[in-house]
Amino acid sequence: MSDAHAARRERLLEHCSASGADAVLVTSPANVRYLTGCTPCGASLLLTRERALLVLPGELPPDDTGEHPYPVDLPTRSAGPEQDTAEPAGRAAVEFGATDLAVEEHDLTVSRYRAVGVQAAGVRLHDLGRTVERLRVVKDEQEVADLRIAAEIGDQALGELLESILVGRTERHLAMELERRMIDHGADGAAFPVSVGTGPHSGRTAHRPTDRRVEEGDFLTVSLGARYRGYTIRCTRTFVIGAAPAGWQVELHRLVFEAQRAAREALVPGTECAAPDRAARELLYAAGYREEPPRPFGHGIGLETREAPQLGPGETGKLDNRVPVTVGPGVHLPGRGGVRIEDTLVVRPSAEGGPELLTITTKELLAL
Amino acid sequence: MSDAHAARRERLLEHCSASGADAVLVTSPANVRYLTGCTPCGASLLLTRERALLVLPGELPPDDTGEHPYPVDLPTRSAGPEQDTAEPAGRAAVEFGATDLAVEEHDLTVSRYRAVGVQAAGVRLHDLGRTVERLRVVKDEQEVADLRIAAEIGDQALGELLESILVGRTERHLAMELERRMIDHGADGAAFPVSVGTGPHSGRTAHRPTDRRVEEGDFLTVSLGARYRGYTIRCTRTFVIGAAPAGWQVELHRLVFEAQRAAREALVPGTECAAPDRAARELLYAAGYREEPPRPFGHGIGLETREAPQLGPGETGKLDNRVPVTVGPGVHLPGRGGVRIEDTLVVRPSAEGGPELLTITTKELLAL
Repeated sequence: MSDAHAARRERLLEHCSASGADAVLVTSPANVRYLTGCTPCGASLLLTRERALLVLPGELPPDDTGEHPYPVDLPTRSAGPEQDTAEPAGRAAVEFGATDLAVEEHDLTVSRYRAVGVQAAGVRLHDLGRTVERLRVVKDEQEVADLRIAAEIGDQALGELLESILVGRTERHLAMELERRMIDHGADGAAFPVSVGTGPHSGRTAHRPTDRRVEEGDFLTVSLGARYRGYTIRCTRTFVIGAAPAGWQVELHRLVFEAQRAAREALVPGTECAAPDRAARELLYAAGYREEPPRPFGHGIGLETREAPQLGPGETGKLDNRVPVTVGPGVHLPGRGGVRIEDTLVVRPSAEGGPELLTITTKELLAL
Repeated sequence: MSDAHAARRERLLEHCSASGADAVLVTSPANVRYLTGCTPCGASLLLTRERALLVLPGELPPDDTGEHPYPVDLPTRSAGPEQDTAEPAGRAAVEFGATDLAVEEHDLTVSRYRAVGVQAAGVRLHDLGRTVERLRVVKDEQEVADLRIAAEIGDQALGELLESILVGRTERHLAMELERRMIDHGADGAAFPVSVGTGPHSGRTAHRPTDRRVEEGDFLTVSLGARYRGYTIRCTRTFVIGAAPAGWQVELHRLVFEAQRAAREALVPGTECAAPDRAARELLYAAGYREEPPRPFGHGIGLETREAPQLGPGETGKLDNRVPVTVGPGVHLPGRGGVRIEDTLVVRPSAEGGPELLTITTKELLAL
């Protein structure tokens, strides 16, 4: 636990004192990592003015929970029928002399909450809410540096894939190869399952790779993100297979490219969170591509692949400086395919050159 | 949703009526899958005598949650700051005329619980506890058939790896290759990150593959499991690299092999759940290999990689017929390495030939 982590815990305690809590129990794995730099399996962080304690679960961790490449259900939630009765964090809170304990009600299960209440008899429980998530929104330069490396890893993996022969290979193989290449380039792992969609599957969000093989004339959409020191990015690109893209492919790609650029250019500190999505959506709607209900084109990213702020229609907050976000509009035409283009950028003021693009792989319509 | 799933929901409702609930909200993803055969992202199952309804979360699912190869935190838990306020399941319960709603307190977060309470004003909330988990313990023959295929996939992947050159390759590469091979053979994905431990890393539980390369004279421990139609198995084997294993390696492997056999032979319907672990542990302790605190050598397996029953020391239940379990004792000598051997078997009465071994890869000390 470094000075940076200690400073974060200090800030959290200040927030809590204001609401009357003299101790905090942090259980969300991403929040524990943010405040300590480490994530032993199932550990919670108990924090008072005097002490910071990582509390391990009441049982030995199961045998298959090294650090997972994707965020996982921790064993304290799903392990066995017995573990809910032991809640060492509650006991520790009493030993620390806590009288008002703030807990993360959006993360803690009802069973664990009750167990903490039993073990910490006499201690009042408060809801911490998403206080730590809010502290996490604006990143420091070390966090941005880690995100930059995560993005570089994704770009390298994608760049290598584009140099290889694609026709005839299945979506599943291409996705596996991208995961392997990201690990080869130093990623902790893939931040989420790599999505590869060809032909009619292209342009879909969250397409799960199938055994469909790449064919001449296909659109190919790849969506990937590496995890580096816990920090993740997202990058989506759409290419075309073969030397001569069809007219509708060129046109659709140009439209999505313009929409994505409009969204990127709206990433200015102080702007409404809904602005980038609106900028992209106006162009797509004007061209006749409506989406009902609208799925947000972007969101914050960091220790989680999707975190605050949300950038969808109707979001009312303002964008802050040094907030990494994704911007990824797309169009999918059922049965034909489509285009999606997504970057991860850090919001920066125009005096510093405007939004910092992390995912630098070309967004042109490469013919592969 | 097939007849088998309908019959499972019927059984669950019978359990619930007995405790006075006229509706059930199932939120644990594995439980939703068990009762419906499907797992749309973040969906909950609301069940009454008259109806079964899959309730999708109050927001659109995020863009990176196709079906994950590993169990993941669903978006209703970690997505954004807003989604806790919408809890459509609560409203639906009211529309269904429920008066007593059983919920899974070990899975539901405090925030969602409160939201259900608000939306379902006037409806009493009960704790369903681990009722569905208990229904899941004894498998039907269709479930066993899926487990058998999952085991075959793991055996094929492992068999192919053993035929290739291993010296000089890193743990990470071997692990990635095994994951790819399992997918090639039809797995939904790896049930958990494949663990490959060489030399001093061999014999460890949950070893996270490193860049260490396989060397002559190493022990090599591989732990893997495929997921097939949601069902998972575990298989662990330890081999030696090079033609001439050292004396201590032969001896340690023989000991763990004998301990694992003793545990397997204790898998008889009606036996205490602690018996297989005890049988293995006695042999290891007699040879001077104590473990403090003892980590259980086995547990139930199925839709989750670790589920009821637990087979550790001190477990008091009895083993039932048609319960798939893992049996995986091992010894790890810090700095030197070790041996772990683990199978997945289905408990069967001796009249039917005794425990059914699913993971049939040889357990001999192969010199590769």
